[in-house]
Amino acid sequence: MNKGFVVTPWEVSGDIDYSRLAKEFGTTPISDTLLKKIEKHSGKLHYMLSRKIFFSHRDLDILLSEYEKGTKFALYTGRGPSGDTHLGHLIPWIFTKWLQDVFDAPLYFQITDDEKYLCKRDLDLSQTTAMGYENALDIIALGFDPEKTHIIVDTDYSKTLYKIALQVAKKTTASSAKAVFGFTNETNIGMYFWPAMQAAPCFLPSILSGQKIRTLIPAAIDQDPYWRIARDVAPKLGYPKTSAIHCSFLPPLTGMSGKMSTSEGMQSTIFISDDEKTVRKKIMKYAFSGGKETVEEHRKKGGNPDIDIPYQWLRYFEEDEKKLRKIYDDYSSGKLLSGEIKQILADKISKFLAEHRKKRESARKNISKFILKD
Amino acid sequence: MNKGFVVTPWEVSGDIDYSRLAKEFGTTPISDTLLKKIEKHSGKLHYMLSRKIFFSHRDLDILLSEYEKGTKFALYTGRGPSGDTHLGHLIPWIFTKWLQDVFDAPLYFQITDDEKYLCKRDLDLSQTTAMGYENALDIIALGFDPEKTHIIVDTDYSKTLYKIALQVAKKTTASSAKAVFGFTNETNIGMYFWPAMQAAPCFLPSILSGQKIRTLIPAAIDQDPYWRIARDVAPKLGYPKTSAIHCSFLPPLTGMSGKMSTSEGMQSTIFISDDEKTVRKKIMKYAFSGGKETVEEHRKKGGNPDIDIPYQWLRYFEEDEKKLRKIYDDYSSGKLLSGEIKQILADKISKFLAEHRKKRESARKNISKFILKD
Repeated sequence: MNKGFVVTPWEVSGDIDYSRLAKEFGTTPISDTLLKKIEKHSGKLHYMLSRKIFFSHRDLDILLSEYEKGTKFALYTGRGPSGDTHLGHLIPWIFTKWLQDVFDAPLYFQITDDEKYLCKRDLDLSQTTAMGYENALDIIALGFDPEKTHIIVDTDYSKTLYKIALQVAKKTTASSAKAVFGFTNETNIGMYFWPAMQAAPCFLPSILSGQKIRTLIPAAIDQDPYWRIARDVAPKLGYPKTSAIHCSFLPPLTGMSGKMSTSEGMQSTIFISDDEKTVRKKIMKYAFSGGKETVEEHRKKGGNPDIDIPYQWLRYFEEDEKKLRKIYDDYSSGKLLSGEIKQILADKISKFLAEHRKKRESARKNISKFILKD
Repeated sequence: MNKGFVVTPWEVSGDIDYSRLAKEFGTTPISDTLLKKIEKHSGKLHYMLSRKIFFSHRDLDILLSEYEKGTKFALYTGRGPSGDTHLGHLIPWIFTKWLQDVFDAPLYFQITDDEKYLCKRDLDLSQTTAMGYENALDIIALGFDPEKTHIIVDTDYSKTLYKIALQVAKKTTASSAKAVFGFTNETNIGMYFWPAMQAAPCFLPSILSGQKIRTLIPAAIDQDPYWRIARDVAPKLGYPKTSAIHCSFLPPLTGMSGKMSTSEGMQSTIFISDDEKTVRKKIMKYAFSGGKETVEEHRKKGGNPDIDIPYQWLRYFEEDEKKLRKIYDDYSSGKLLSGEIKQILADKISKFLAEHRKKRESARKNISKFILKD
């Protein structure tokens, strides 16, 4: 059945109907009641919650109830290091940092150099490991607390992870790995095992502390299937089921369909390493516009922010609710032209990236404080 | 087609026709020319070679030619720790020790606590690891050189092994693992990956030394399929193909069919831990006899050493060629009675085990000299 979109861990395309997707995945939309519960602890909601960029969850209600009774939880998210990070990658990480601050939660950040080596024909393990350490700088640059943030580059922590993964693997048949991940008989045996390595950090906080500590995974919704196996085996191994909170995809620069992805091509993606000139050029040239054909028509009828990529991206990056509202109104009314809203986005992103790169470079000297090795 | 026997890594049964088996597996019988080549280095052949207990190989000729040109090789063998070691386990290890002495070769001995955990429903990882360290004592007790012998308990060296296994896994499809190991869709994903962990020590000597070092695997013939994957991927990864030398199975105490195995039951197996009384009782009571029904008939017609388990076991444990020959002749002629040949075996095994257990206990204090950890 063609439903107009595809969302799997290995493909995202089409115009995604997120409420339908949540239903299909069996995840729960984040209700206003749940938002209020979060607000009680955070004081103010993060804009990614109030704007429903994070829109769905699994067992977040359970995790919060436990938290309110004094049970700590840990955060877990990750990155597959196959190249430079781009703006899309940062969305869940920025939100994760907020969660760490609000809930005083340790974060386990898994960098999957093993998986990227296994699934990318042309990459050596030394390359994916090196990329992993480069990507780690982007994580640290976001301001995570070095006391509470543990970055795992898989191959450098594999002694610990492998032992945990064995427990998960023993309880997971090839059948279920095939069903969840779309493996075939031609898939390599490393990929078959790898879901167990990815599940391992779900249980790591419990193992390291000797207490039952639930993990909360903030990630884009397409990553959800990866943790189904972890959730399935958790009760069998005596660990709490992992909770999750899911975000929608930062759309590609070129339009609302699909998600920003390196494989979508250079013009749809802004990389962390893109300099100001490149950023401005990409936005001015490629950003899909919801504006009208002519300035006259635009002034008269106004633009459509719901399909306008500069506006949509500002939803992801402009923290100030009032500013964003004004941009929405002015763009809808025709007061703000397409070139102008692009300029606003280009300014915002350029400034953000310039600061990020500065923090990224100063992170180099601190990296060892974050890396978990065995 | 029923050929009267089955030999796979997970089943050995029936009356094994070893030359037919070698043909089916595609291994090469050890020729007299090859024996002469070995003899040139060893001075005297080990009785397991002259008696064709080790009877087949892969690329042993290539390995020896390289050795003669000055290229060193390494030995690799292993043990799956799911319980106590028995006499059958010791056969390839005794021979491996001789190879180490003759060729001054380092030995990598893999104890697969991970695999046994994955495939044995009722065993915890902590149990298989503990069994692994107990089994290590039996290896050390055989007199291996601590300077040249590296015992690997998988989970305690998994950081190094995992990185190598990733290389093997990337080149191995689920299809080929299924074909070689008989996996199904219901097999757990740990088992799917595990052939890559088992292949890793084949390449470890090359990786640790930075030179191309071929490994030679002495093992019972049923283990041969385990290294087909290692041999397949070796050239793709730029390592020399692993050589192998295969032995026949120490038959169960109860008869010539199949191999000694813990799962065959207590009366068919003599464990290292069996005390003298138990050994004597098992041999006297259960050892299948090639003797005649009555003493009179035996004296007249003689016994059949070819199906007599005490004689067959003496082939595996009595180093002295002359003694063995005399036993053969006396038993065939009827001079030696069934009870007497059993007594000879019981004396031999009891003495061997008493000494072995003494060495085993004194190995406890030296174990750390042998264990490779990362």
